[in-house]
This record gives sequence, structure tokens and C-alpha cells, in this order.
Amino acid sequence: MSSNILNNLNPGIENLHPYEPGRSIDEVVAEFGHHEVVKLASNENPLGASPKALSILAELESDLHLYPDGNGTKLKKEIANHENVALDNIIIGNGSNEILELAARAFLNSNTSSIASKHAFAVYKIVTQSSGASLIEVPTCNWTHDLKSFENYIESDTRVIFIANPNNPTGTYNNHEAVHSLLKKVPSSVLVVLDCAYFEYVTKDDYVRPLELLNEFDNLLVTKTFSKIHGLASIRVGYGIANPSLIEVLNRIRQPFNVNSVAQAMACIAINDHEHIHQSVELNSQQYEFLYNKLLALGLDCIPSVGNFITFKGNFVGKEMFNNLMKKGVIVRSVDLYDMKDFIRVTIGTEAENLKFISALEELL
Amino acid sequence: MSSNILNNLNPGIENLHPYEPGRSIDEVVAEFGHHEVVKLASNENPLGASPKALSILAELESDLHLYPDGNGTKLKKEIANHENVALDNIIIGNGSNEILELAARAFLNSNTSSIASKHAFAVYKIVTQSSGASLIEVPTCNWTHDLKSFENYIESDTRVIFIANPNNPTGTYNNHEAVHSLLKKVPSSVLVVLDCAYFEYVTKDDYVRPLELLNEFDNLLVTKTFSKIHGLASIRVGYGIANPSLIEVLNRIRQPFNVNSVAQAMACIAINDHEHIHQSVELNSQQYEFLYNKLLALGLDCIPSVGNFITFKGNFVGKEMFNNLMKKGVIVRSVDLYDMKDFIRVTIGTEAENLKFISALEELL
Repeated sequence: MSSNILNNLNPGIENLHPYEPGRSIDEVVAEFGHHEVVKLASNENPLGASPKALSILAELESDLHLYPDGNGTKLKKEIANHENVALDNIIIGNGSNEILELAARAFLNSNTSSIASKHAFAVYKIVTQSSGASLIEVPTCNWTHDLKSFENYIESDTRVIFIANPNNPTGTYNNHEAVHSLLKKVPSSVLVVLDCAYFEYVTKDDYVRPLELLNEFDNLLVTKTFSKIHGLASIRVGYGIANPSLIEVLNRIRQPFNVNSVAQAMACIAINDHEHIHQSVELNSQQYEFLYNKLLALGLDCIPSVGNFITFKGNFVGKEMFNNLMKKGVIVRSVDLYDMKDFIRVTIGTEAENLKFISALEELL
Repeated sequence: MSSNILNNLNPGIENLHPYEPGRSIDEVVAEFGHHEVVKLASNENPLGASPKALSILAELESDLHLYPDGNGTKLKKEIANHENVALDNIIIGNGSNEILELAARAFLNSNTSSIASKHAFAVYKIVTQSSGASLIEVPTCNWTHDLKSFENYIESDTRVIFIANPNNPTGTYNNHEAVHSLLKKVPSSVLVVLDCAYFEYVTKDDYVRPLELLNEFDNLLVTKTFSKIHGLASIRVGYGIANPSLIEVLNRIRQPFNVNSVAQAMACIAINDHEHIHQSVELNSQQYEFLYNKLLALGLDCIPSVGNFITFKGNFVGKEMFNNLMKKGVIVRSVDLYDMKDFIRVTIGTEAENLKFISALEELL
């Protein structure tokens, strides 16, 4: 062929390096033959899915031959109630990943740029490059988005600014005032995407208050996900909140049935499963203390995290430690692609999972 | 705002009219208060989902907090086996809609055009316009894609040709030779997307043989779906088949976890549920005869269809007949947006559903 047709690829795609998912339990079992593998690689909820959401799976059977509600009305009603916004402030996506992608597809092209922090979530770069645009990276300050500097990086062709708060893989956050100050400086023609995938885990008093910002800034899009606190990474649901005219244009370019029926039904229940949310936050806070102190005691250098994961380094190469831990039946994440080759990211698991991880790590150090 | 930010919208989005899904049973029940509503609006499988696929729903519970397999390896193995192709010939999508969108995003931009038949599936226009490109429409011949004429419409900036075979909403098809002849004339730098969403329903001997074409043409992408014959419209799975280098670039721009775990697991079973597939084809063939003859007997003008739906016209305005049928508890589809204002599209349902539809129609004529 194919040289022929590939010569016509849109800008950005030729050199695009797609997202690399964490290793799966199945893969590691197949490769290493462990009976019991602990996966602390993808910041999933160690308590599993919302049990209330699981309990409605069986009820869905009779309608699975029908197309999903393309408007997601029931789910948007639950989200509206939870977030205290109106239905037309909400767009639902096939994971919040899709909302990030829609923002890029709406505003980025080969004549534009986006801005994100260095060491920020990899998808910002991917959706920027898929749209043919270029990403401007702002250096971090103590592994934290340096929001004060962001304005200095805005070019005349900048159309989107991505902020991960807290950020994956560093686990650091920016407080409400820092985000507010930046928004006041950003031209109203530039979209600011505030990615709050780990929102519910944050227990800091000065953490961002999205609704206040949304009320003040029409160029703000806040994204959240059901993949983390709700334990529904498998079923792909996320959402974006913004002013109605912005939501309306994003809705135009999404697929008509982008979120499947099972996902919509489970998310409707999960968002109201306060007990599961509470337990998940409690477990995370408690096990964060445990894990962080253990890692410190092992002489490792941890980045303080407000999420459900800890990124740390020691006298090792991240990729090697990742492989050695995998051989011991513990899957963590190397963060090479974030230009953090000395680091490992570990998801905060249950006590038993964390103990197995610490034990494997101790043996290797 | 928002004038400000919307001024920066990418080309094509400003005038984009998104896809309008059919009315849902819930909506119609809410509006008209019927107890029993028949939905023959969206070409779904009246036998429901593959029962074998349904039976594995309960087994999925334990892993729903984990991310899906981003590579879809198990599902691709089942598809590879079914289609007699290799794993790297396959991309899976959030419905085949997503594969169509990825093709557009890879090759179309504001300096390019795509080609599709007039009265062809609406998504080709939507994904073209979302990419900022312009759609060139080729007039039909007897409501059928006039593939012989397609080559005359190819411009120097044409990058993608969409062919629906059979086409929705007309139900017409092109035979193998017609598609083969066109492919021989299309420059190898132009992607041809052959959308076979209704493939399994077609019982014609001269229908297209995708594998033969794929073996000959590197610029061909064939798409299929689990939404029709497998009865899994709710869960959003489709796939594309093409040569590995084309599949690889499409994979670069898809979301890392585009197909959810429930969808992957159910599709793995459904593709091998030969009994359900057989029954669905049998029912469709038998009820097509019944419905077609009934419509003819009512003096209506039917377009002969090889799919699971019939599009017909009479002495009525399509939109009005659609509304009147809805008041009687039967949801069909008006095809206004296909520039077929005198027509109605009805999905071939079960015998009971079809009888209810015919009875309502008779009362209205």
C-alpha cells in the first residue's frame, strides 16, 4: 500500500505515541505463572465497584438490544443533583478521557497550541498531538503544576490549557486560590480544562471548589470520572461540567451513543452510593499514611500525594524495579514516559495488598 | 462568554447538526401514556441480545473496578477467528460508529473532502464535518449507491470514500463486482470505508465478500457491528478490518480504553452464538416477506431491502405519519434528514410487533 495512504495522514498522527496502559493481572499471570497477583498499577479502587451499582447489573438484561439513551438524561439528572448544576451544564463521556479528547477536537488544530504542566497526565499530550496541535510544557515546582507561571507560556495560538488537580502521576495539587488566580489571567478565548479525576480523594481544606469557578468563568471545563472513587474503571464513564454553550458544541462532535447503557445505569447508582464513597476515602487516607511512612522508613523519596497513589524514588531505575516487582507478583507503574525514570508509582491498595507490595519491595532493596 | 471561546471553534463544528437518535420507549410512554409501546425505530434485533452473552453478565462483577483490556486481545482473537484474519488486521471500537470517526480523524481535515452516496447513513456526513472536511454526495440510482459514478466525483483533495453496504436507511446493497470495480479505480491514496453493519442479514449470493477485497486492496477498511444481528446495541461494540499499517495508525488516535469490559466480554460470546444469529436471520427473512407484502397490499411504495428494515412511502408526509404512529404506541423513524420527507423507515420486528405496526398503519391510511 500503504505508503500511499499513510502519506495522507493528518498532522500529528505520524509521530504520535499512544497511551500505554498498565500491565493486566491476566498478562502477568500468563507470563510469570503467579497464583496471586496484586495490581497496584492503574489507580483503581481496591474496594471494587460500588456494590449498589453492581446489584443492578442483572436488571439490565432485558433491554440490552436497544441503543443507549444518547442524551444520557437519567445519568445527567443524577450528576446535576450531585454537582448542583443544571442538565445543560453536563456532558457525559466514555470516561473523562473522552471529554478531554472532545475539548481538543473542538479547539485544537495544526495551527494552534495547548499548555500543560511537565509531568502532567499523558493524555493531554496525546489529544493535543492527535489534533495536530503542539503542546507547550510548563516546568513544575516541587513536582507541582506551577500555575503562577502558566500565563507566561500562553501564545497567541494557544487555545486550551490542561490542569490536572490533583495531578497523576505526581499526586500533587493546586489550591483554589492558585487556580482562581490563573483563570483571572487567562484570556476568555482560551479554554481551561480542570481535570479532577481524583477529586473525591482530596481532603485538603484549600482544595479547589469547582462550582465557584464555573460560576465565574465561562471558559472553564471541569472533568470528573467514575473510574476512581466509584470503582467503575471497566465501564468507562466520566463527565464534564461547563456553561451550556460550551457543552452544546462538545455534544455536537461526540458520538451519538458514546456511553453504553450498562455504564449509564451503574453510574446512576454509584454516584449516590455514599457508603462506598466514604469507605473508599477512609481506606485511602488510612493506607496512605501507612504506605507513605513505610516507604520513608525504607529510605525512599516520596512525593506527597493527595490522590490514591504514591510516586517515589530510590537507588534504582524505575523500569527495572517495575519488572522486579512484577516477577514477585506485584504490578506497579513505571513512569518513564513522564520523564521520571527513577520513579515508581504505586496505587494505594487494601492493607493486604500494600503489605504484599512493601514486603516485595523490601526484598528487592 | 462565550462568543469569545466559540470564535475559536474548529472548522465544520459551527454548522454541524448532530445525529438524532430515534425516540426511546421511555420517552414515548412518558409523553403518550401508552402501556405497551413497540419500538421499530432503530434497526435493533427484536429477539434481544444473544442469550449466551447475557448469561455471562453476572460473572463480570468481580473485576468491574479494573480498567478494560486496552488492546481488546480476547475479543480480537474471537473476531480474528470469525473473520479469518490476523489480530493486527483488527481494531475494535465503541460501536462501528467510532471506527468511522477514527477514519475521518486520521485522514480528513479542512483542506480535504470525502465522498458518500446521497441518502447514505448520516454518520459519514457528521464525521466528515467534525473533521472540517466537506462531503461530496453522489446521486443514487434506484435508491442504490451508484458506485459506477463514484470515480467521477473523486477530487484531488478527496481522502475517504464511505460505502454503506447495505445502506441505511434505503436497505439497498451493491454486489461484490460493483464494489470490486470501484476499488480498482480508486487511487490507492484514498481510503475506502466499506460499512457492513447489516452484513449478516444479507442473503444474496452476489453480496460483497470482504475478505477477498481486503486481500487485494490495502486502502480498504471494512466495518462491522455488534449492534444489529448480535442484539447488543446498548453496549457499543464494533470493529474494523484492514491491513496492519492502517489499523496501527487508527489505533494511535483511539482512546486507550475505548471499549468497556462488559462490552468486550459480551461480544466475545455473542460472536460465537450461532443459534441466536441463525434465528435472527431466519426471523428477519420471514418477517421481511410478511411485512413487505402487507405494505404493498396497502398500496405503499417500498424500497426492496436486504437489511432488517423497510423504507416506504405513501400519500403522507413522513414526519406526520411518524407522529401519528407514535400516538398509537408504535415508534418508527422519519427519514427527513436523508432528504426523504415522504418516507418512513420501519425495523422488522417480531410477528407480534409487525402486526401491531400494520394494524396501526391501516387505521391511519
